[in-house]
Amino acid sequence: MGEFRELNGDSKIEYGQDSLRVILVSPRNPLNIGAAARAMSNFGFTRLRLVKPYDVAFREARSAVRAHYILEQAEVFDSIAEAIADCPLVAGTTAVGHRDLHVPLHRLEAAAPLLREQLHASPAALLFGSEKFGLSNDDMSYCHWLLRIPTRAEHGSMNLGQAVSICLYELRRDASASDKRFAAPKHADSKEYEQITLLLFEILTRAGYVNQRTAKSSELKIRRLIRRLGLPASDTEAWLGMLRQILWKVKQS
Amino acid sequence: MGEFRELNGDSKIEYGQDSLRVILVSPRNPLNIGAAARAMSNFGFTRLRLVKPYDVAFREARSAVRAHYILEQAEVFDSIAEAIADCPLVAGTTAVGHRDLHVPLHRLEAAAPLLREQLHASPAALLFGSEKFGLSNDDMSYCHWLLRIPTRAEHGSMNLGQAVSICLYELRRDASASDKRFAAPKHADSKEYEQITLLLFEILTRAGYVNQRTAKSSELKIRRLIRRLGLPASDTEAWLGMLRQILWKVKQS
Repeated sequence: MGEFRELNGDSKIEYGQDSLRVILVSPRNPLNIGAAARAMSNFGFTRLRLVKPYDVAFREARSAVRAHYILEQAEVFDSIAEAIADCPLVAGTTAVGHRDLHVPLHRLEAAAPLLREQLHASPAALLFGSEKFGLSNDDMSYCHWLLRIPTRAEHGSMNLGQAVSICLYELRRDASASDKRFAAPKHADSKEYEQITLLLFEILTRAGYVNQRTAKSSELKIRRLIRRLGLPASDTEAWLGMLRQILWKVKQS
Repeated sequence: MGEFRELNGDSKIEYGQDSLRVILVSPRNPLNIGAAARAMSNFGFTRLRLVKPYDVAFREARSAVRAHYILEQAEVFDSIAEAIADCPLVAGTTAVGHRDLHVPLHRLEAAAPLLREQLHASPAALLFGSEKFGLSNDDMSYCHWLLRIPTRAEHGSMNLGQAVSICLYELRRDASASDKRFAAPKHADSKEYEQITLLLFEILTRAGYVNQRTAKSSELKIRRLIRRLGLPASDTEAWLGMLRQILWKVKQS
């Protein structure tokens, strides 16, 4: 990157910035939605998605300075599953380091190079939980990884707008030092992971593996098991075919 | 840095964080002062200084969430000269890349290692201008360097609280963390892959997915599908349990 360009701002979209979906789950504060949109504009990202935002918050946020176009284009969804459907990679953010999260947890700066690589190949989602509660266990079950901004243990929880801006800065940060030897394998997208999850869940329910009382936690467990698999996109059809056949058979008995 | 510490938050002050003076010049918005203090608390910096803050803004900011101690200790000065008097190094921040600034201008990520080093030796100041005007030429004349966060040329100006948080994140950031690729996840061993392959093959045979005449090639296909999965070693038992249950069910019919 030339010295002149470098110092005068990067106007070109240099990596798959359109591939990133910034997803705010149940945001409550319009200032935070606006701040997230402004940071996106600062760093050249455009695709904002909101899952169950508080209506008033979203309306008020649309007044955000110089970020109208991002908020105007923002998409609203009723569920995380829909919001991430086109994303083979889903990364959640968390301030929690010690809880058993069942999902691989990485420092932001360690995970960013991989996320950046992935964005060249296909869409990816970056999930932020609500200001008050962060991402729930249910939300996290949709994630392939969790990212942690390296805050102090005694005060880990960040302002939502600041957390978004730091993550986007880290993605935008000059990565010339990062090594690009390995291309990210193209994995199944979230919609496909979810199809497989639901098929397997139905099979296991009919096979008596899933207890009625604990069905919800079993579903989360199965969703996480599936997400932890590195499932090549090109194998998805074969897996769906096998599972449908097994389901058909299990229904016979 | 140990894995455990890394993931559980950094509670120790590891470099000269007390050496850094975060200086806000003429801040107008209490939310931004509060946001700066909160980011300082998140990243373990304690020394906030304000130059000619709007009184009302400063008073209101003192209500910032969990950052009381930083705002209580904040020092107020009438001039930049006084605010930086104890700092051998003064770095200003700017969104402007093209003006002739008469001061060396660096991207934040390029300058951060130098600033980090300096903080081990002696105090340093990081200056942020007012929300509306940034640092003036007069303010900049006190700076040894200027830092630019790599925002887009078309929308360079950041929210003050977000700019502070990104600069502190960059100082706190562990450069070594990004050099390390993710540790390769420990995958199931070949014996386990094979157990899973054989169970699935038996299920599919009983489900009518496997044709007798092409059984051998189906077995190979299934073996390859399984090997292409990135199956975490720690999930193997769960998968074997699910498959055994499905097999049991399929045998019923």
